Amino acid sequence: MLMAEADQPVAAPVPGSDWVGDPRFFASTGPHTLTRIADAAGIALPDAPTRYFTGVGPLHTAGLDQVSFLDNPRYADGLATTRAGAVVLSPDLLARLPDGCIGLPSANPYLAWARICTLFFPPPPPRPGVHPSAVIDPAATIDASAEIGPLAVIGRGASIGADTRIGSHACIGPGVAIGQGCDIGAHACVSHALLGNRVRLLPGVRIGQDGFGFAPDGQGGYVSVPQLGRVVIGDDVEIGANVTIDRGSMRDTVIGDGTRIDNLVQLGHNVRLGRGCVLVSQCGISGSTTLGDHVQVAGQAGLTGHLTVGSRARIGAQAGVMENVPAGVSIVGSPAQPVREFFQHVMALRRLAARELHRGRAGTAAETEPNR
Amino acid sequence: MLMAEADQPVAAPVPGSDWVGDPRFFASTGPHTLTRIADAAGIALPDAPTRYFTGVGPLHTAGLDQVSFLDNPRYADGLATTRAGAVVLSPDLLARLPDGCIGLPSANPYLAWARICTLFFPPPPPRPGVHPSAVIDPAATIDASAEIGPLAVIGRGASIGADTRIGSHACIGPGVAIGQGCDIGAHACVSHALLGNRVRLLPGVRIGQDGFGFAPDGQGGYVSVPQLGRVVIGDDVEIGANVTIDRGSMRDTVIGDGTRIDNLVQLGHNVRLGRGCVLVSQCGISGSTTLGDHVQVAGQAGLTGHLTVGSRARIGAQAGVMENVPAGVSIVGSPAQPVREFFQHVMALRRLAARELHRGRAGTAAETEPNR
Amino acid sequence: MLMAEADQPVAAPVPGSDWVGDPRFFASTGPHTLTRIADAAGIALPDAPTRYFTGVGPLHTAGLDQVSFLDNPRYADGLATTRAGAVVLSPDLLARLPDGCIGLPSANPYLAWARICTLFFPPPPPRPGVHPSAVIDPAATIDASAEIGPLAVIGRGASIGADTRIGSHACIGPGVAIGQGCDIGAHACVSHALLGNRVRLLPGVRIGQDGFGFAPDGQGGYVSVPQLGRVVIGDDVEIGANVTIDRGSMRDTVIGDGTRIDNLVQLGHNVRLGRGCVLVSQCGISGSTTLGDHVQVAGQAGLTGHLTVGSRARIGAQAGVMENVPAGVSIVGSPAQPVREFFQHVMALRRLAARELHRGRAGTAAETEPNR
Repeated sequence: MLMAEADQPVAAPVPGSDWVGDPRFFASTGPHTLTRIADAAGIALPDAPTRYFTGVGPLHTAGLDQVSFLDNPRYADGLATTRAGAVVLSPDLLARLPDGCIGLPSANPYLAWARICTLFFPPPPPRPGVHPSAVIDPAATIDASAEIGPLAVIGRGASIGADTRIGSHACIGPGVAIGQGCDIGAHACVSHALLGNRVRLLPGVRIGQDGFGFAPDGQGGYVSVPQLGRVVIGDDVEIGANVTIDRGSMRDTVIGDGTRIDNLVQLGHNVRLGRGCVLVSQCGISGSTTLGDHVQVAGQAGLTGHLTVGSRARIGAQAGVMENVPAGVSIVGSPAQPVREFFQHVMALRRLAARELHRGRAGTAAETEPNR
Repeated sequence: MLMAEADQPVAAPVPGSDWVGDPRFFASTGPHTLTRIADAAGIALPDAPTRYFTGVGPLHTAGLDQVSFLDNPRYADGLATTRAGAVVLSPDLLARLPDGCIGLPSANPYLAWARICTLFFPPPPPRPGVHPSAVIDPAATIDASAEIGPLAVIGRGASIGADTRIGSHACIGPGVAIGQGCDIGAHACVSHALLGNRVRLLPGVRIGQDGFGFAPDGQGGYVSVPQLGRVVIGDDVEIGANVTIDRGSMRDTVIGDGTRIDNLVQLGHNVRLGRGCVLVSQCGISGSTTLGDHVQVAGQAGLTGHLTVGSRARIGAQAGVMENVPAGVSIVGSPAQPVREFFQHVMALRRLAARELHRGRAGTAAETEPNR
Repeated sequence: MLMAEADQPVAAPVPGSDWVGDPRFFASTGPHTLTRIADAAGIALPDAPTRYFTGVGPLHTAGLDQVSFLDNPRYADGLATTRAGAVVLSPDLLARLPDGCIGLPSANPYLAWARICTLFFPPPPPRPGVHPSAVIDPAATIDASAEIGPLAVIGRGASIGADTRIGSHACIGPGVAIGQGCDIGAHACVSHALLGNRVRLLPGVRIGQDGFGFAPDGQGGYVSVPQLGRVVIGDDVEIGANVTIDRGSMRDTVIGDGTRIDNLVQLGHNVRLGRGCVLVSQCGISGSTTLGDHVQVAGQAGLTGHLTVGSRARIGAQAGVMENVPAGVSIVGSPAQPVREFFQHVMALRRLAARELHRGRAGTAAETEPNR
């Protein structure tokens, strides 16, 4: 592990370019009164002055008519110099605000911040209607309030719920059911699947294709095993760009309510995720593995097949999980082990290598590095 | 490694939802006689009773008119309580079937199962014709039996063989040749490539784009090296969703007959895979590395460039391969080493850390964990 | 690490199939004189004979009218038997050329080679015009010299610069600005982004979608935090197939000039890459991490969030980076450490395991391998 800080300034590649809420890309509301803002954030502010705010911004650039926030205590030094008109923050940091800056204290500043940002920048509602370039099977059912984007394809027997948006070039296969208030990104492809309400698929998601199942034919080839299950997705699920989720083989692949999946994640056939799981980018879960509720899987971690992971377990970045994980346990490493043990091993190995170097037994670097 | 089983039941997120062969998504045949089923599976059943079966199902839900199977011996307890009418299984487990349940003994139950499922759920044949929304270059050659889906694009000089299906939004570049009986998934993109027969590309596959080749220009920039090879894919190859396969630079990238590639795999330029290789999801093979026949690469493994891997070598999950691998050898770890050595090292490190803890030399956890 | 070479010949799956510059896929120029070729490569060749060359090829197949090159010294044995008419190579290898073969000496043979290949195979220019099947918002601005491919979608307020090509099925969102001479691959999806000049996106790239930001709502669910930044991409950037780059949350995600990104890479929100960085396939950089200039990140490496990596640092394949990295340092391993230390640790562990085996304390393999 490197203990040193980066010893050289890193050039900002395009200095000064940042723009929060660039109106080319975001529609905003406001100005809003401080009272309205505090209400949106669920913050009690009994003697709120009558002040108007036009938007939001980070601590170091927000102006007098903008709201800012502080979530990570290690950036608390930024409070002293902020010119923001109001700041959402933890109550114990209120005293560090400069004069004239209004504190918006919250036990969960990030949640309050999410709500304030949503007040100023609400997600645009779908524009009802089917783009004339979309290819809609006559036997598909599309709610009148849904928006079907250009060049989308909706198959026979598919159903699209109220207030759902289907992005451009999306492909919704025959029989697929999509609930209300969903947002299906551009180029997403969904087959053999049932989606709940308020599901968001980011661009390029692949859902419902064949799982990786085949039998050796005894002559050096393979025979595909028909994959006869589906993908069943609960409510309030969000799935990142270019994620792939295979349908089940002899049962369903299931994603529980409220689960969040980052970009480029892979879920094999028959995987089951509970409610409120968080899967970070590029992790992969092999076939028939089941996760409980609120399991966290960090980036690039991998789980082999047919495992059971208990609720609220936490799997570290790049972990390689080959055995069941009890509920609530945190593991890391490849093969994965409990976090404390992992770092004990890392440190034991460091001390061993240091002792060997000290005793002069390790030889030269040329001897210890493998030929390449 | 965690030895404990998950100590808390994991909630089934959508209980009771499983549905094998949901007719919204799958067309089925049948009922079929037991004799027909045994024939399909290659199982000799001399005195088969005249019984009809309507479908397939897992051991714990299959009914009297359904066929089930057991492949993994650790689930053999499920035999005692199954209500399936017939079960495909290894001959040595026949005695464990309940009364009245017909055994379908096979030395390769999974293969037999694949064939029975295919009997009941045969892949739908292509529907010949070109969708009116597809964009076909006049100089493309498309067999009359091929199916070209909505909004597909077929470039100049491309050829599409008999009984091949091109999915919606697929993009087949100029000059690309696709053989007979192929299935090109939605949103797949193929350029600079020649495909054999019965090749399946799942949605979002990217084949034939530029490899990652460029030369430093001596002034802090890079100059791209034209990538002048192709991608040549044999027969019976299957490639998973969102896989990327770059074309060769000064030779071809080649995928041998019968090779199976899972989702989100990356193959660099000039990679060569032999026949019958199996590449599991999210693994990556760097440029100019060559694999023999029947090599297995597990999930998230990575191989550096310019390596040679012998036939039937097995590369474990998350392995980092930096040297050639002899034929038939199993390796794992990063850097990769033979499996037995890898676990010897894992265990030696555990004992070392345990000894240090025992001697009280490791200090507190606070001392052994790095600052974060 | 495996020291043995692969001990069995690897079958070439499709022998003899290689074809450099297959005219079905590549348009070529020529023949060119040796003088023209040397000029293109920046090689001084004062007494160049009047010779014409028709193309390029690898050492072992190039003929008398073709130019070849040698970059990797370990393939220098190929010089003795080449029949190429001319070879680009390092000056110190000139003496190893066979009689009659013209040497083209260069201090940077790979760069010279890039330029010669580009002379023979220049990238095809865009064909100005908008394909009639594309869906263009009336409020988009498209330069008359730009090429818009079939079934592309260009949103309201988007602008497409001169000599830029937009591939088939690409989706350019509202307000997106794309500079001059860019090449946007098929199925690419760009929103909330500003691109410089000569930017190349390979097929399936996802740029500008929501980052992975949400706050626990205290009741087991999550609330999305609006992602109000953009993606700002400099000049001469190249981004590989199926890469995902999220837009910033409260600042921009920024990619510096000349940076090269391989396939299936993930960049989280607010990531900043300096100039001339090289990111190899399947690596991932978590949110708010900043890289300096000319940083190299090898395949499948992962960086956690909020880190700073100094210029010209090198991060090895599969490294797991959890702390800041000083400029110029090379690290590898998970958790990452300096390369020399990493291999010292690897070797120390090997010696430890060997000592244990020697003392007979390691027990049988059955004891040391975990149950699976």
